[in-house]
Amino acid sequence: MTQDPLVVFTPSGKRGRFAAGTPVLTAARQLGVDLDSVCGGRGICSKCQVVPGFGDFPKHGIHSGEDALSGWNTVEARYDEKRGLPPGRRLSCQAQILGDVVIDVPPESQVHRQVVRKAASARVIEMDPATRLYYIEVEAPDMHEPTGDLERIARALKAQWGIEKISTEFSTLASLQPILRKGDWKITVALHKTDISADPRLIAAWPGLHEAGIYGLAIDLGSTTIAAHLTNLDSGDVVASSGIMNPQIRFGEDLMSRVSYAMMNPGGDAEMTAAVREAISTLASEIAREAGIDPALILETVFVCNPVMHHLLLGIDPVELGQAPFALATSSALNLTAADLGLTTLPASAQVYILPCIAGHVGADAAAVALSEQPGKSEDLVLIVDVGTNAEILLGDKTRVLACSSPTGPAFEGAQISSGQRAAAGAIEAVRIDPETKEPRFRIIGSKFWSDERGFAKAVARSGITGICGSGIIEAVAEMRMAGVLDASGLIGSAEQTGSARCIAEGRTHAYVLHDGRATGGPLITVTQGDIRAIQLAKSALYAGARLLMDTRGVDKVDRVVLAGAFGAHISPLHAMVLGMIPDVPLDKVTSAGNAAGTGARIALCNLAARRQIEADVGAITKVETAIEPRFQEHFVAANAIPHATDPFPELAREVTLPQVGFKKGDEGGGRRRRRRA
Amino acid sequence: MTQDPLVVFTPSGKRGRFAAGTPVLTAARQLGVDLDSVCGGRGICSKCQVVPGFGDFPKHGIHSGEDALSGWNTVEARYDEKRGLPPGRRLSCQAQILGDVVIDVPPESQVHRQVVRKAASARVIEMDPATRLYYIEVEAPDMHEPTGDLERIARALKAQWGIEKISTEFSTLASLQPILRKGDWKITVALHKTDISADPRLIAAWPGLHEAGIYGLAIDLGSTTIAAHLTNLDSGDVVASSGIMNPQIRFGEDLMSRVSYAMMNPGGDAEMTAAVREAISTLASEIAREAGIDPALILETVFVCNPVMHHLLLGIDPVELGQAPFALATSSALNLTAADLGLTTLPASAQVYILPCIAGHVGADAAAVALSEQPGKSEDLVLIVDVGTNAEILLGDKTRVLACSSPTGPAFEGAQISSGQRAAAGAIEAVRIDPETKEPRFRIIGSKFWSDERGFAKAVARSGITGICGSGIIEAVAEMRMAGVLDASGLIGSAEQTGSARCIAEGRTHAYVLHDGRATGGPLITVTQGDIRAIQLAKSALYAGARLLMDTRGVDKVDRVVLAGAFGAHISPLHAMVLGMIPDVPLDKVTSAGNAAGTGARIALCNLAARRQIEADVGAITKVETAIEPRFQEHFVAANAIPHATDPFPELAREVTLPQVGFKKGDEGGGRRRRRRA
Repeated sequence: MTQDPLVVFTPSGKRGRFAAGTPVLTAARQLGVDLDSVCGGRGICSKCQVVPGFGDFPKHGIHSGEDALSGWNTVEARYDEKRGLPPGRRLSCQAQILGDVVIDVPPESQVHRQVVRKAASARVIEMDPATRLYYIEVEAPDMHEPTGDLERIARALKAQWGIEKISTEFSTLASLQPILRKGDWKITVALHKTDISADPRLIAAWPGLHEAGIYGLAIDLGSTTIAAHLTNLDSGDVVASSGIMNPQIRFGEDLMSRVSYAMMNPGGDAEMTAAVREAISTLASEIAREAGIDPALILETVFVCNPVMHHLLLGIDPVELGQAPFALATSSALNLTAADLGLTTLPASAQVYILPCIAGHVGADAAAVALSEQPGKSEDLVLIVDVGTNAEILLGDKTRVLACSSPTGPAFEGAQISSGQRAAAGAIEAVRIDPETKEPRFRIIGSKFWSDERGFAKAVARSGITGICGSGIIEAVAEMRMAGVLDASGLIGSAEQTGSARCIAEGRTHAYVLHDGRATGGPLITVTQGDIRAIQLAKSALYAGARLLMDTRGVDKVDRVVLAGAFGAHISPLHAMVLGMIPDVPLDKVTSAGNAAGTGARIALCNLAARRQIEADVGAITKVETAIEPRFQEHFVAANAIPHATDPFPELAREVTLPQVGFKKGDEGGGRRRRRRA
Repeated sequence: MTQDPLVVFTPSGKRGRFAAGTPVLTAARQLGVDLDSVCGGRGICSKCQVVPGFGDFPKHGIHSGEDALSGWNTVEARYDEKRGLPPGRRLSCQAQILGDVVIDVPPESQVHRQVVRKAASARVIEMDPATRLYYIEVEAPDMHEPTGDLERIARALKAQWGIEKISTEFSTLASLQPILRKGDWKITVALHKTDISADPRLIAAWPGLHEAGIYGLAIDLGSTTIAAHLTNLDSGDVVASSGIMNPQIRFGEDLMSRVSYAMMNPGGDAEMTAAVREAISTLASEIAREAGIDPALILETVFVCNPVMHHLLLGIDPVELGQAPFALATSSALNLTAADLGLTTLPASAQVYILPCIAGHVGADAAAVALSEQPGKSEDLVLIVDVGTNAEILLGDKTRVLACSSPTGPAFEGAQISSGQRAAAGAIEAVRIDPETKEPRFRIIGSKFWSDERGFAKAVARSGITGICGSGIIEAVAEMRMAGVLDASGLIGSAEQTGSARCIAEGRTHAYVLHDGRATGGPLITVTQGDIRAIQLAKSALYAGARLLMDTRGVDKVDRVVLAGAFGAHISPLHAMVLGMIPDVPLDKVTSAGNAAGTGARIALCNLAARRQIEADVGAITKVETAIEPRFQEHFVAANAIPHATDPFPELAREVTLPQVGFKKGDEGGGRRRRRRA
């Protein structure tokens, strides 16, 4: 008696023997091979495409003959005729195993395919979406055995997909009857699970085989900007990214001023809730239009946000977050619908997942950073700072993770800066100051040329030079410090003290002229003493938060630093350290994670298990409340100096020697040189 | 060693020994005695009141001394001082067992107390509501152990009530923070379960101990009227009943004309949905005002309705119900919220339960009748007819239950009758015709006097005599038949044929003058030949439906008949049988169940287990579709005669002998006497 044919699936390596005539898809399912199918083996969805290998495979001990699979049957031939099957591909639900064979499952046929992130770090996202499509053929109604159309859909899902029990989103119910009839009792349904073991919920349906895909939005709901990634829930591809300003800015630039607005104005919280929901609805329809998809196909949305935005999104008065003990209304992850949140441009049945909050000041955005950057899996001690209007700070390694948030204010984003502006064409984003001449050169957003290079004038002709953005002001202040026009205490020297005419008097203080465009009708762009103070407050808060976590952990240095936040990608590690934003580490140990919170949102959008993971991880994070720790104030005051009044920065000292200047009254002429403790 | 004290609880008879000092409530819980408590034994809700018995109880073998329970402690004394404890009552959570004792649990302290229905049948409703109150004391927030307020509520429910896991209605979430603070971390929450084993859902909360009660609405959503009973969910008492017209009447009097309206007018279904939801919202606020309660306390609503109303309430186009195969969008019971249905005067979190539908023409109203009347538990074969614009008909006993609906039209409700009107003051509701003189006497709604009695004129002075209501027309037609002014074929005789001047000519047919009020500016109230035809069509449909079920069951007689429907209570069994509305049974075997559908709704509102029961029962009911059964047409035609062309009515014959008159052309003078087969 000859043995049944041997089948080896790659890349999984799963193998088994199957009776001749077994469809490849059936064999794959029995072996637990990750192979997609929406139509359930009817040869119409083509999700189950495989690549049979022919020839000798010594590694697998197989010789695969040309006749190892059955030839095309009529179903496969018809599919090829209508849609075209790529060369070498077979529909695994139609091709039958006749002899020993090696079958490769290409990535696009895997349910759990891995999606490589575009960001700097190489982590991949494994697809395991909460919402999936199922093609079913439903029995027509029978007067003599009356059952509802919905009940026959449930029966078909059980018979054809082994799905025992479903529930139905109420807003979807009314659409089912016409869809069933339009599809002549053949429909595709989208089933959403809030958990792997949960009964799925029917949230959408289409006549026949639905081929236009389904999509999800990963939304990073920031105090200042709302950023969204529209993601194909099948492939994991980001098909469009877009952002808009958070319209709540008109109620207050930072979070606490919005909380105050809610406190002082009855109904103010509802006003802010309505504003942000409307903005999200607008963003959703705009991003769908940009990607050229029907917004009705957006079936999931994941939100990450800080606690105040979290409450305002949910329609909860944030007043408790403005005062000790900073009690959250709820800290758990939430499963809601677009209808619950009044997101009118999404289907009412679209599912919403909001990541858990960590504490009253450490929100779902910090949880998303933890999900993206996984400090709890780090071998070395990593400090992650997500720089924004509020900074989320995580410190940890495999043994323990700590988190806090720190109210840096919007200075790092170019707000509250005299010539500050949002990061947009025309904004100075990089600055260098010659330590000898004290002359600056700079680059603006939209041009690759430095201001002293040929081509710069032409490149900026359209946008002009309009202001300084967040990364520009950080570099400017750090460069001023390195060039000796700014002392360690944060004072800008006078023209006499610095020997530079760019240091101009402004009342009783001085300002440094970065660019004077007045001759051509442009602005005078200076860094004022007030700007320096704003940056000092912001960076002190950031550093103090990090130090507080280090204290709690019982360390005075960290192994590496990750700069996160949309803006983290643009901060130069050297400048950040000169400024004293982050603790002293070797410069090559400072990396950028891009928009880690947004990435965390994308991971949660694409992977159901990741939601459970971050919900569990959040419970294990040690929360540190900066607002009530007396040491925070101490750290804050000490961090006011640039880079720091007391902490040594030996790694920084290896890279750069900071001029020891002092511009206090009595220091006239730069004569008295202060010795830094380092 | 002396034995622990023996405690016997009445009326359950549960008994056990407990260590001296055990609170009575604790002992009751350990024995599984049905004893209520909202505050969880804190001595503030007084739900756990008991009546200790003292003296000799030979039946229980107990002598209960005056010192068998501890004296009042400070909690109990304070409660008595503030609220007053009725004589002989104790708070079982405070009173401790010190010696053998008999403890009576009065009905109002039982969770599962029985509520006697006011209706004719004596069935009781056992209280087992889906929504219950729990008083809890919640931990205050702690900055150092940050958790959400909701999470601490869940923790309190677990610690204080053993409730493992809750979910929260999203619309309730935003209210929790201020309630917790107003109650100084002591609150009462309402938890709703869709099933005994389901995790409860937090749907409302109040500061401190909530003492204003919670309420539910049982709504019978009929084609013509919407009737609601506002019920206390603790006591089961109906605190107010009210009804309004279904505003959909303007789109069509009967169901099929509404379906047609939806078919012919794009958006017509949505228009009807909006109208009925608005009417229900109005009814809810009116009934709450009538009862003097805050509508925010209405936390549950149960709906029973026919399939067309079911779909229109849910916002589902009813078009499929207008054509074979009469497919329901969904037949299962539904758990929704007031927000889902846009019932704006109820709390958004109020839970809605809609009974299952039986088939495309046999709705949740028929299911409610089955729940109320329990044909499946009947020893003898019972026919239940719920008379309305559409008649729901059930036939069954312990072995099998069958159901159908029959399109009787609105004639039985006084519509499509020349002098017909809704049942309201001034409407003729009972009629007697002297067989000798052919002179009528009648009674109108609002007066106890017959029209030939003294006092009648005075009693009707205010309302006048305005028309005939549903029961009035049935009696009038039956009396006309018994008096010989109407023949078996349904023809009204002429004055010559009948010898009565009350038979007046009306075109080519005749009409019978019931009342001529024209001299005093009132109406001429007649029963026309057209009225007779309308009643014949309605009663033929009803009878044919019943016969079809009897055929399917294989019987040609039933043991008893139950007339249900708001209107069923007012039909005289004799007149119903003379008319041939119902099959022939002994008159004392015809009973009225009042508004059985409404009662079914109340049962489902008060008892969670009843919901599961009817969901299971519905699956076992044999559905018969009248619209496609050829035999229905046969039965319908044969039932046109009064009482019937072919079926014998021996039981009726025992009660009354019908004149054998005939008024067809050629029968002039009543000469030819037709012999009935009976």
